[in-house]
Parts: sequence; C-alpha cells; structure tokens
Amino acid sequence: MVECIFCKIIKGEIPSFKVYEDDWVVSFADINPVAEGHTLIIPKKHVKDLWEIDEKSLIAVHLTSIRIIKAIRESLQPTGVATLQLNGEGAGQEVDHYHLHLIPRLKDMPPLPVARWKIIPGDMDKIEGTAEKIRSAMK
Amino acid sequence: MVECIFCKIIKGEIPSFKVYEDDWVVSFADINPVAEGHTLIIPKKHVKDLWEIDEKSLIAVHLTSIRIIKAIRESLQPTGVATLQLNGEGAGQEVDHYHLHLIPRLKDMPPLPVARWKIIPGDMDKIEGTAEKIRSAMK
Repeated sequence: MVECIFCKIIKGEIPSFKVYEDDWVVSFADINPVAEGHTLIIPKKHVKDLWEIDEKSLIAVHLTSIRIIKAIRESLQPTGVATLQLNGEGAGQEVDHYHLHLIPRLKDMPPLPVARWKIIPGDMDKIEGTAEKIRSAMK
Repeated sequence: MVECIFCKIIKGEIPSFKVYEDDWVVSFADINPVAEGHTLIIPKKHVKDLWEIDEKSLIAVHLTSIRIIKAIRESLQPTGVATLQLNGEGAGQEVDHYHLHLIPRLKDMPPLPVARWKIIPGDMDKIEGTAEKIRSAMK
C-alpha cells in the first residue's frame, strides 16, 4: 500500500514549506499553485473527505483558516481569497486526505479559475424539487 | 442603505428554497446553480467574510456542511462535491454576507468549473519565499 503523501508531509518524511502547525493541523504551501500564496490546511488525522472527517478535525481546520487568511492579508495584500475543498474523484479531489485550499488573488493578477462561473438563473421548479430531495434526506 | 439579500432570506422577506435552518445558520438552494443541487449555507449573523466571521458562526456553518453533504450524497448520489467560499471582490464574492457553496457533480455531468485548474509546478524559491512571508505574519 502506498502511503498518503500528506501523511508523509505531516511526519516530515517529505519536505514541505510549512506555514503553521499544531496538534491538530498542518498548513503548508501548495507546490502546484493556482496563484501566488496558494496554501493548504490539512488535519493531522488521516480522513478522506468531508463525509469522513470528525468534528474536532473539521473545527480545527476552519478555525486555523481564520488565522491563515488574516496572515495572507497582512503579508500579501490580496484583492480576495477563495477557500475551496474538494470531495470525491468526480469533484477533482487529487489527494485522498481532506485538504482546504486558500487561494489568494493578488493585485493585477488574473481572476482565479476556481471562482469563475457563468451566472445563469436555473429552472425554479427543478431547483425546488432538488432542494426538497436534499431537505428530506437531512439527519 | 440597501439591505443584504441574504439577511432578507433569513427574515423570510424574500422567498428561498430552504434545505435546513437552526438558531445559527440557514441553508438554501442557489437559484443560479453551477450544477444541480448547488446549495448555500450562511450564518444568521451578518458577517461579510472569513476575515470578519466569529468562531461560533464559522463552526456552525461547517458542522452543518457535514450534514448537508451527507444529505446530498443520499439524495443525489453525486460523484463528488466541491465546497467553495469566496472572500473579497477580487475573488468574485457577489454577496457581502459569508456563504459556503456546496456544489455536487452528478453522474454524467460535466466537470465542475470551480474544481478545474492546470496543475503546473511552481517556482520552488518563490513558493518558499511566499510561505515564509505568510508564516511570519501568523498570529
């Protein structure tokens, strides 16, 4: 079995450019950045995705995201920052260890690809029907 | 002053297709969906973004996201789900009230635009330098 690349980063078995670390999370630079300052936050516990993550790890990641986005603002003065987290192969998840992307857009840089889509009003009956399906499945 | 459209949804002054509501958050369908099942979660407290949000609201939104993504899986059987949250005009934030997008990709649907970017290795010296700037600004 090939070990998870992010677990190896947590253990220090492969190098990374760390931004922050505590008992629950590690934050480090994405080495294939969408934009300058692209930073990841991961839980130390190996969990695949939002379906699998425990509440403590999720809370730790997101409370850390407040501190990281403030440090990004102070250090890089972005015009905006996208946070993105992908679940499942169909959504383009590349590493099967939960990871939150923080992707800044710096001044004079092109729009972030992850933050662009066409605003097209949907079919209201269809939207209502799908929302009802999701609501009915809530536990 | 024009009132925030999401605050109006919270108050029921404009209609929405609600999926979930409690004392802290509301979840409802995005009426300009990127994909079928596109759902938003917002805190009831009006806060602009991740720089401004209080910890309790942030935790409530993300704990709710676990329940919504599970309901999406059960009701729609997606191949994946992206979660996305935009901060600042430069990142394409359209409504100045913190909101987390959950965007499912259903079977046989095209890849999600928000989850697509070119994987291009960055300049390691530059990545290291930027990570060091962010780390130095951590509080």
